[in-house]
Amino acid sequence: MKEIFLVIGGVAAGMSAASRFRRNKPEADVTVIQNREYVSYGSCGLPYFVSGLVKNVQGLVVYDAAFFQQKRNINVLKWHAAIKIDPSAKVVLARDLRGNKEIKLSYDKLAICTGASPTRPELPGNELKNIFAIRSAEDGIALRNFLDKEAPGKAAIIGAGPVGLEMAEALCARGIEVTMVKRPGSILKMFDDDMVAMAEEELERKGVNLVKNALIQGFAGDNKGNVRAVVLADASYEVDFVLLATGANPNSRLAQEAGLKVNANGTIAVNERMQTCTPDVFAAGDCVGQKHLMTGKEVYFPRGTTANKQGRVAGENASGGKAASPAIAATLVSKVFSLTIARTGLSSREAEAESYDFVTSTISHPDHAFTYPDPEPEDITTKLVMERKTGKLLGAQMIGSHKNMGVAKRIDVFATALYNGMTVAAVNELDLSYSPPYSPFYDNILVATEVGLKKLSRRTGE
Amino acid sequence: MKEIFLVIGGVAAGMSAASRFRRNKPEADVTVIQNREYVSYGSCGLPYFVSGLVKNVQGLVVYDAAFFQQKRNINVLKWHAAIKIDPSAKVVLARDLRGNKEIKLSYDKLAICTGASPTRPELPGNELKNIFAIRSAEDGIALRNFLDKEAPGKAAIIGAGPVGLEMAEALCARGIEVTMVKRPGSILKMFDDDMVAMAEEELERKGVNLVKNALIQGFAGDNKGNVRAVVLADASYEVDFVLLATGANPNSRLAQEAGLKVNANGTIAVNERMQTCTPDVFAAGDCVGQKHLMTGKEVYFPRGTTANKQGRVAGENASGGKAASPAIAATLVSKVFSLTIARTGLSSREAEAESYDFVTSTISHPDHAFTYPDPEPEDITTKLVMERKTGKLLGAQMIGSHKNMGVAKRIDVFATALYNGMTVAAVNELDLSYSPPYSPFYDNILVATEVGLKKLSRRTGE
Repeated sequence: MKEIFLVIGGVAAGMSAASRFRRNKPEADVTVIQNREYVSYGSCGLPYFVSGLVKNVQGLVVYDAAFFQQKRNINVLKWHAAIKIDPSAKVVLARDLRGNKEIKLSYDKLAICTGASPTRPELPGNELKNIFAIRSAEDGIALRNFLDKEAPGKAAIIGAGPVGLEMAEALCARGIEVTMVKRPGSILKMFDDDMVAMAEEELERKGVNLVKNALIQGFAGDNKGNVRAVVLADASYEVDFVLLATGANPNSRLAQEAGLKVNANGTIAVNERMQTCTPDVFAAGDCVGQKHLMTGKEVYFPRGTTANKQGRVAGENASGGKAASPAIAATLVSKVFSLTIARTGLSSREAEAESYDFVTSTISHPDHAFTYPDPEPEDITTKLVMERKTGKLLGAQMIGSHKNMGVAKRIDVFATALYNGMTVAAVNELDLSYSPPYSPFYDNILVATEVGLKKLSRRTGE
Repeated sequence: MKEIFLVIGGVAAGMSAASRFRRNKPEADVTVIQNREYVSYGSCGLPYFVSGLVKNVQGLVVYDAAFFQQKRNINVLKWHAAIKIDPSAKVVLARDLRGNKEIKLSYDKLAICTGASPTRPELPGNELKNIFAIRSAEDGIALRNFLDKEAPGKAAIIGAGPVGLEMAEALCARGIEVTMVKRPGSILKMFDDDMVAMAEEELERKGVNLVKNALIQGFAGDNKGNVRAVVLADASYEVDFVLLATGANPNSRLAQEAGLKVNANGTIAVNERMQTCTPDVFAAGDCVGQKHLMTGKEVYFPRGTTANKQGRVAGENASGGKAASPAIAATLVSKVFSLTIARTGLSSREAEAESYDFVTSTISHPDHAFTYPDPEPEDITTKLVMERKTGKLLGAQMIGSHKNMGVAKRIDVFATALYNGMTVAAVNELDLSYSPPYSPFYDNILVATEVGLKKLSRRTGE
């Protein structure tokens, strides 16, 4: 009999697991069940679908189910929801959501790639209509259909992380008046306050009404059951719709009910091979955590790129391989209107929480040389977090013009440095590319590390 | 008496040496002699000055002599040419080129940063007028003045390295018909032939007449002594002027006459502290060689960024410090009309010459995600050179649209990987930034290393 690899969930982790297993075992039966229509889509592109820049939802889809079926011989059961896992019988019970019948699927190896669901605040009025979330392709379609049909004028976005900010831009691009409502605490909390301040200025320039330290009491509706206001302790904001962007929770209920170990934060417990406490069952993607490169601790930083890598590891190991999931540097880049913000490693807030003894340095320097004024250079601000005693780089943050691709890719140089435990002095000696259209003569990375070195030597009294 | 640090040459290496010495020894006498008007200029910007994009020569100057005098207390003697070094008396004889008188300058420590001069072919007719070179700010001014005044229609560029190609673009931008004359051998010889082919196609698209395998017999002139034709063995090209772009030779005559050791290729011999065979005399910049990161061998790859780093090391050590000059990865980026070409480490031609056992892999992949079609993604071609046995990255080459800054900065990620001796597998596990405006979901670096890994495992029969 054919070996069966069953995967629950068909986005980044699930399709990667299935593809890797297929590559390693051309004879096996590889089946993916997905509880919606779309598989393997780029949810990071949702803001650009909502804004209208991406014309139709097919523009978000990396590969469709037919591709996996035809090119990779992977069975994709769309609109099938897993409802129970029985690890002892090695069976998954699933419901065909269109036919509304239940089927039993046996497996030899199973990968749980159930992803995460948007966090929904427990607030009065959260059952009202026109309160949207944004995570799946279907979430994006629902929101865009609403915008196309209703042409609403006013939105509130709850939460102000990268997704919230990207959605603020998307809604502004459609001419919608946006109020961002942020509970006490920093917006873009993975960035330091000085970097965040630059992002806040950009929101202000673009006419976004940012309400910080908001204590939301609930949502008020009209007699049709549509949301009409976000009610705070001391104010109320009239809206035509609400967008929740307060993060996501791992979908681990199914695993938990099957007796698999689930961590306190809700992630499915796995080892670095992406194996659950039951050796034939793997889990990967937004339903599990990640090991942080700098601290070695498990964190919850769900990203498509990481999900993809974890899925590959799960597929490799499920098919008999010996792969380990790499640690993450929590690298992130986001377009915030005309700005690019990026980070990797530890912010100073995080370094402090982890009790590192560190110093920081911040520089602003042009993105390329004045000897190539087409376009004119614009400053990039670069902040480094450095360990005092060892001089090691702990993290980097950058903010600059969106037009300059150099922010995203320079943060990748810093990420590469982190993976190698480089000191700030070693980064400063790198032979980086230079030509006037692409870099200032002293690249931002070199200026930042040069100034960082001075700071390190000053602080240690050298 | 004050300690005296004397520097011969005031561009990248010289001014860096002087600045570092000054920082370390605020009481010393620091003097730089420069045989021309401009100091500390960006010669990499010369093509953009010649094209007219940079309006005036001040646009190329990073800091002028007054800045060094006033802000850093460094004496700059412009228009002074060193004519003799006497290491035993610790004296440099210099001529004031404007006053035409000789002066003697004593020193305690000396740095020779005399740079390099354009290679001039020994050919009949090379004394004709309107044969230009392009290395110093003054070279750029001479050429631009000629172009502004004479409005020539036809140019021949001798040589087809990055400088030659950047100048071809600059001249085309001024409406000049350009013929590039290249002796037998590859254009852009630091790149592999498949990458070069893409650059050649771009030259063709832009109307540049590229004459390869040219055996130049000499230059023919008119009765005014102006060059009028480039004469090959089998053809002749009519021109209004000629631009020599066949590389540069280290200026080491002064050092050699002073009895300092000079290498066979003409570079001044220095240790990694930038010290010549005479301990009080340092040398840095385009007049010395560099250690190649991958081979450990000395190479001659003169670049402003390297000169600057070497100058800093010379200044540090001259003032009593203990710095070592880092090896270079021979990282390079250049704008070739609408393309960006970049490389780091070893090309396959170089790996072959060094007898490495290696495999290569080449991919083309979009520069960013289709979910952010503003602008539409364009492909970047990435080629890796990998050591077969160890799976180590040996080098990378990239070519893509100029508009995409991501070529230059992605090559820097590869350069950083080389400095850490990373394997292709380790690079493939990096947590790189991703967002649709900046990267495809699988970054070009990750796709290149993924395909590279397959190639490595296939070739080794795993």
